[in-house]
Amino acid sequence: MNSNFISSRLKVCRLAIDTYRENVAYLHRDCLVYRAEGFQALAKITVFMDGQQIQAVLNVVDDEAIVGPGQLGLSEQAFSQLGAAEGEEVRVAQAEPPSSMDAVRRKIEGERLELSDYREITQDIVSSRYSKMEMAAFLVATGQNGLDRDEVLSLTIAMLESGERINWNEPLVSDKHCIGGIPGNRTSMLLVPIVAAHGMLIPKTSSRAITSPAGTADTMEVLANIELEPERMEKLVRTERGCLAWGGTTRLAPVDDMLISVERPLGIDSQGQMVASILSKKLAAGATHLLLDIPVGATAKVRHMRDAMRLRKLFEYVGDRLNLHLEAVITDGRQPIGNGVGPVLETRDVMQILQNSPNAPVDLREKSLRLAGRVLEFDPDVRGGQGYAIAREILDSGRALAKMNRIIEEQGRQLEEYEPGKLSFEVRAKEKGVVVNIDNYFLAQVARLAGAPIFKGAGVDLYRKLGESVLKGEPLYRVYAEHQSNYDFAYEFVGTNSGYVIGDKMDIPSVFVDF
Amino acid sequence: MNSNFISSRLKVCRLAIDTYRENVAYLHRDCLVYRAEGFQALAKITVFMDGQQIQAVLNVVDDEAIVGPGQLGLSEQAFSQLGAAEGEEVRVAQAEPPSSMDAVRRKIEGERLELSDYREITQDIVSSRYSKMEMAAFLVATGQNGLDRDEVLSLTIAMLESGERINWNEPLVSDKHCIGGIPGNRTSMLLVPIVAAHGMLIPKTSSRAITSPAGTADTMEVLANIELEPERMEKLVRTERGCLAWGGTTRLAPVDDMLISVERPLGIDSQGQMVASILSKKLAAGATHLLLDIPVGATAKVRHMRDAMRLRKLFEYVGDRLNLHLEAVITDGRQPIGNGVGPVLETRDVMQILQNSPNAPVDLREKSLRLAGRVLEFDPDVRGGQGYAIAREILDSGRALAKMNRIIEEQGRQLEEYEPGKLSFEVRAKEKGVVVNIDNYFLAQVARLAGAPIFKGAGVDLYRKLGESVLKGEPLYRVYAEHQSNYDFAYEFVGTNSGYVIGDKMDIPSVFVDF
Repeated sequence: MNSNFISSRLKVCRLAIDTYRENVAYLHRDCLVYRAEGFQALAKITVFMDGQQIQAVLNVVDDEAIVGPGQLGLSEQAFSQLGAAEGEEVRVAQAEPPSSMDAVRRKIEGERLELSDYREITQDIVSSRYSKMEMAAFLVATGQNGLDRDEVLSLTIAMLESGERINWNEPLVSDKHCIGGIPGNRTSMLLVPIVAAHGMLIPKTSSRAITSPAGTADTMEVLANIELEPERMEKLVRTERGCLAWGGTTRLAPVDDMLISVERPLGIDSQGQMVASILSKKLAAGATHLLLDIPVGATAKVRHMRDAMRLRKLFEYVGDRLNLHLEAVITDGRQPIGNGVGPVLETRDVMQILQNSPNAPVDLREKSLRLAGRVLEFDPDVRGGQGYAIAREILDSGRALAKMNRIIEEQGRQLEEYEPGKLSFEVRAKEKGVVVNIDNYFLAQVARLAGAPIFKGAGVDLYRKLGESVLKGEPLYRVYAEHQSNYDFAYEFVGTNSGYVIGDKMDIPSVFVDF
Repeated sequence: MNSNFISSRLKVCRLAIDTYRENVAYLHRDCLVYRAEGFQALAKITVFMDGQQIQAVLNVVDDEAIVGPGQLGLSEQAFSQLGAAEGEEVRVAQAEPPSSMDAVRRKIEGERLELSDYREITQDIVSSRYSKMEMAAFLVATGQNGLDRDEVLSLTIAMLESGERINWNEPLVSDKHCIGGIPGNRTSMLLVPIVAAHGMLIPKTSSRAITSPAGTADTMEVLANIELEPERMEKLVRTERGCLAWGGTTRLAPVDDMLISVERPLGIDSQGQMVASILSKKLAAGATHLLLDIPVGATAKVRHMRDAMRLRKLFEYVGDRLNLHLEAVITDGRQPIGNGVGPVLETRDVMQILQNSPNAPVDLREKSLRLAGRVLEFDPDVRGGQGYAIAREILDSGRALAKMNRIIEEQGRQLEEYEPGKLSFEVRAKEKGVVVNIDNYFLAQVARLAGAPIFKGAGVDLYRKLGESVLKGEPLYRVYAEHQSNYDFAYEFVGTNSGYVIGDKMDIPSVFVDF
């Protein structure tokens, strides 16, 4: 039932305004349609053209230079989604709310939803029928303890079905994912060349940083082009068995990206949404085997062992039912992994390890080898417990470095030379003792204030880690910036607090993790 | 702490785009600021000018005719909120989320919030620091059973404090409110002249219809100007003791309007939000005594007696603590009140009652007299139980009509003559029997499809009410439209269903209400 009027004809025009994932339509205030229909700015309208229709949020324009009274302006995404030609005739009507909002309202009232409900919801979201506020309502209603584990499974399936799914036509497609929250921690850039050198398929895509000082994509970009066309990525993966590309395509589980664009600014997330988001992306990318890294620590994303265990079980429950071979390891998230935080400094750590340099950070090397070992054990021909030794052999022999260089060449070597920022200052210990705590969140903030990840050379270089002794006045870390304003922000931020706690060896928090 | 960079200077320009209550800023894609800061469309930014700052959602523009690379375009509301002159220099930075979102996140996690939290939240909302999605998150988190009664009290106080508060400097300022959902039911247009004729102050403001076929404001507009400047309204109320004006000002409890603009399209509401919304508006308007009409019926907003009782207790709890003399009556919401549905038809009913016409609908007259009687009993000099007789005497004597005419003259008589729409058709009974059900929601839909409230003459005129007998083929109601397309929509809608159930007198649902 359409409870509204369909307007007389309007001529459509493309407005060169990018409204990201929200369709916006522009009507002149003197347009007869606007006045007759009692529309209001921010109302949602449906735009009809022949068989096509899209939904858009209405903005009202008072300037004929932008749109005239007989026109309907559409933002770039809306225009291309409708597929209209400039000047084509369209009609508009007040939009009905998407029918799946009934299910969202039932969820708000505490009901359990079925797979068919989640399918309808994701279908409406991917067709741009949800406004940002409708997405926010869905996220809040399904956040926190809003989803039981079968609902997480349903949501994962619905999100997976919302986009394309890559089929590599191989029996074993490995992947690795860290739920994040630990500065540095660039294990993927070591694990991928090791696993690919072994001959196992690992088509790794990563995200850019959103709230952290560097994602794998930002760091890899210091060395190589990361924005690969699908065909080029496939060719590379077939020849080299691995890649380190940016996953920022909307082809795979697009609903995930759309929900994240609302979730992030709201600062809300829940275990259920995290599991559905990660697993739908990985399954859409064609993974058959997945290793999950769940770091636990007082300043990590997961702060208690019981939460890590609950998250692991939830991943296992959903993964098992979707025929994904999934292993989750709970790792030490008490402090940053590696010395560098920020794209250039993290790249330096990674290359030192690949080059077997004596200065290479031991913690990042060890963690990467252990994770790579677990992935290698997905191979039926690798005996249980032998993965680590194989990984170490590949690294020590230089085969991992050679593989990394071939991946870099194939993706396109970054010709611009990057260096740590020219401006820098040290932060020193205020007393003698042992490092008993390093605040992950605080150090990530320092690196971001210094300009990471936008300015590649910005970041923090750690000189001391947990359990190490310092004398009063000895440096704890150095902050690098490329611009004076960033230097000043970071300098001011560490004025009263270094993010380190110096104390007695007895005060180091213990941790009971896989590694 | 500001964790971001403040940009170099941009020249601000006003874009004649009305984005309602959401500030939007437009940056050219080639603007250095856009590229350096890693902004993304839909990101929220802060715009700084001298001491002033506002927040806005970012749209990215590819057309220099809209904004150039050195400019920052602002939508109309954003431009006037900043108070800038065209071409003045501003800087921008990524906006921090509003600090009160911490409280919203705690609410999502199930915590109870304090008055100070609600004050922070409403302060951030009224300062346009909340995006629509943040408002949606707040509404969902506090919806359903999200608020206990002390939280409803806190939210009411916080919303009340978000705007101006009128002080009439009189000991008794009466008001009346119906929670809605019943077509027709124009009791305010009868109650106000009766109460004002008695000499009791009743500065009544009403809303326009949003989802219904007519609000009191839409109907009064058939007779008089309803958009009164504050000074004019005050003068009128001082001389005539009452008015029937549009309340669509943003001065009073503005947070309420802002939340409603998100709540309506989402189709979510909760008792707690309804109570806070209504009471904050009434208190801000200066009411000391309030009569609440809560209709109950199978197709009304409140469907069960237990929900009506719960709502009444919640109103009483909050009203008592805010020193508002509040009486709530639970009334018969099984069917429309009066015969007309739609602005012109409802006006006809009201004027027939004021003129003591023999054709006047008895149900609307009786309900209005009872409600008016209860309001008159707020007067300490009126003996309990005598209000109804006084109200009836005022109506029968023509004093109510005289008062109504003076109010109309003072507000400005509507010179255009309105009539029911020229196009009409009848809907007839398909069988003989007694009317045992009339679907409020269905008839409201018919009237809206016919064009109400936008086309004043559109609507439905009921010929039969609950308990009345009809023969097969006798008309149940007539639908009026002003335009053929509306006629067609309404005609098609009633093709398979009339909204009436004809049956046996025994099947009429019973109701146990005040009146």
